[in-house]
Amino acid sequence: MTLDVGEAYRIRIETIGDDHFSWLRQRKYAGWVIIMDEHTKQYCFPLINNYLAGEQVVTVTVAQGERHKHLETCRDLWEELFRAGAGRRWCCLNLGGGVIGDMGGFVASTFKRGMDFVQIPTTLLSQVDASVGGKLGIDFFGVKNSIGLFADPVAVWIDPRFLSTLPDREIRSGFAEVVKHALIADAAEWERLQAATQLDHVDWASLIGRSVDIKRRIVLDDPLERGARKALNFGHTIGHAVESYLLEGEDRLLHGEAIAVGMICESWLSHRAGRLSAHDLDTIVNYLIRLYGHPEIPEAGFPAMIGLMRQDKKNDADEINFTFLDSPGRHVVNETATPEVIQESLRYYNRIRIQP
Amino acid sequence: MTLDVGEAYRIRIETIGDDHFSWLRQRKYAGWVIIMDEHTKQYCFPLINNYLAGEQVVTVTVAQGERHKHLETCRDLWEELFRAGAGRRWCCLNLGGGVIGDMGGFVASTFKRGMDFVQIPTTLLSQVDASVGGKLGIDFFGVKNSIGLFADPVAVWIDPRFLSTLPDREIRSGFAEVVKHALIADAAEWERLQAATQLDHVDWASLIGRSVDIKRRIVLDDPLERGARKALNFGHTIGHAVESYLLEGEDRLLHGEAIAVGMICESWLSHRAGRLSAHDLDTIVNYLIRLYGHPEIPEAGFPAMIGLMRQDKKNDADEINFTFLDSPGRHVVNETATPEVIQESLRYYNRIRIQP
Repeated sequence: MTLDVGEAYRIRIETIGDDHFSWLRQRKYAGWVIIMDEHTKQYCFPLINNYLAGEQVVTVTVAQGERHKHLETCRDLWEELFRAGAGRRWCCLNLGGGVIGDMGGFVASTFKRGMDFVQIPTTLLSQVDASVGGKLGIDFFGVKNSIGLFADPVAVWIDPRFLSTLPDREIRSGFAEVVKHALIADAAEWERLQAATQLDHVDWASLIGRSVDIKRRIVLDDPLERGARKALNFGHTIGHAVESYLLEGEDRLLHGEAIAVGMICESWLSHRAGRLSAHDLDTIVNYLIRLYGHPEIPEAGFPAMIGLMRQDKKNDADEINFTFLDSPGRHVVNETATPEVIQESLRYYNRIRIQP
Repeated sequence: MTLDVGEAYRIRIETIGDDHFSWLRQRKYAGWVIIMDEHTKQYCFPLINNYLAGEQVVTVTVAQGERHKHLETCRDLWEELFRAGAGRRWCCLNLGGGVIGDMGGFVASTFKRGMDFVQIPTTLLSQVDASVGGKLGIDFFGVKNSIGLFADPVAVWIDPRFLSTLPDREIRSGFAEVVKHALIADAAEWERLQAATQLDHVDWASLIGRSVDIKRRIVLDDPLERGARKALNFGHTIGHAVESYLLEGEDRLLHGEAIAVGMICESWLSHRAGRLSAHDLDTIVNYLIRLYGHPEIPEAGFPAMIGLMRQDKKNDADEINFTFLDSPGRHVVNETATPEVIQESLRYYNRIRIQP
């Protein structure tokens, strides 16, 4: 399956093979650099390695994990590119999850004021989310993705084979963005997902294709996040803050797990604002807790989380912006809530009791 | 005088006043941040300070000079923006020379993936050069402007009053870009400049206007430096390397002084390649040495300078790219020279004897 993102680039969702690399060769880069992490070097790189013969290829491996997605790692990467003699006419292939894609894309698009790059996302999360939209960057000042820019890759290659290299928990985490896309924009897809609480019998290529397509349509309407694209923030205003707050602790949540908490809280806010029905709220909450369990969010941290929301780049200092749901498949942007009501939504989350 | 850079933004060359700031107020930013250095804080900020009343304004001052145009200063600036509670709906005003414009623009366009910024260049160099073209960035790995990106400001305000705050040497340095613009694209302007070797009786507003207009036309043809814009590199391939090499020493040259050396060497290369006549070469060399003197470039450093040219973002590892002159006012891009011939041009420069 291929999806064109306007005239800018093409997303291919299929096994990576000869065809991909002959397209890349036609572009006649002076060299290729591949950025990966320890995990993707071991499990994903071997699946593409045999297509690199005869090219000038430099590989750079960075430590794995979100906590390395910061300025110091960028400095190391830029230095590696210099030492390798890379130039603007090189191409950078980012082989990894969201950390590699966001950071590798940022490094590439600022190296000598910008070299081309191909995104090869290897996690479900990065395949359905970071692969489209052109958002690049790193964490800074304790705030996720707070330094970065918008820039398009020359191509996105999504290979579902990479998913078999991931632990179940990681797959489930990425699945939260699939759920989000359905909830904000596609009621039929939401109905389909109701059947998919077991994630081991899924036709990934089709499911990823549908999910990426939802995001693609939203992003094309609003490339720089001035309006319509805010739809994609559903679950993320609170979810990001929960994720950031727990980042340093023992009980840290994966991104999608935190977004699941955020989607529950923001569905409750949608209901409280007179938008989402009680029945729809229940359906969403039950579905998400069945998939993601119900980790408690420490109440002592609520004020710090509100502080983090204030730092979020979509918010100014004094109002917190939300995307609410009217019903599964229909959203509304530019809603707001006060810090008090936001804390109430987190208390609501902690007190949920699911009927077995 | 105002010049429109396509539909992207407008360059105003006139005294900054009420009109500028009422335009800015109409854009309804949540706050303004002003980035300046120690010098512009003392000498330039007072000229605009009285227009800021009633606005939420944060001022940030960085240490002065090219050696602070690096990643650590960016880190400080980003942190200051966070501490000030700045958001994407703020506007950043960069009040200073090329260092402040390049680095402040880079910081602004990567802060929370991009906030608006206004360039207020205060040196002649930044007024005629950095003010148009969208090139932003910092020095890294010993290479000038090697990390950065292309992004447009929302406006450029050039106020000739700022020039009276500068030492003569600084003015003369900036004037090298005025000379370059004439040499590559405007024979009539080159004739006019022949009369202007005394820089104390110049109608700056007109001269800057004509010079910026030359650059504006070239940049509009080629915003991302894929082709035509390489014209602007004249004098810079060698000049940048000379500047970088001498950066740490006692005998460092200002940017324009190094570019003057570069223009002499590259005029000689143009002549050697059978393009520029011996007469035109002599005229250019005499004019530049009369303006900039004749500092010797240490021959021991030639190999290191060649290495720096190889690092330049317009070059791949194995060929050095040049813009040559056919005659004053006419250039040709995508010429090359070998390291040996480049070193010969530097030796030519060192051996020039001007007839009084």
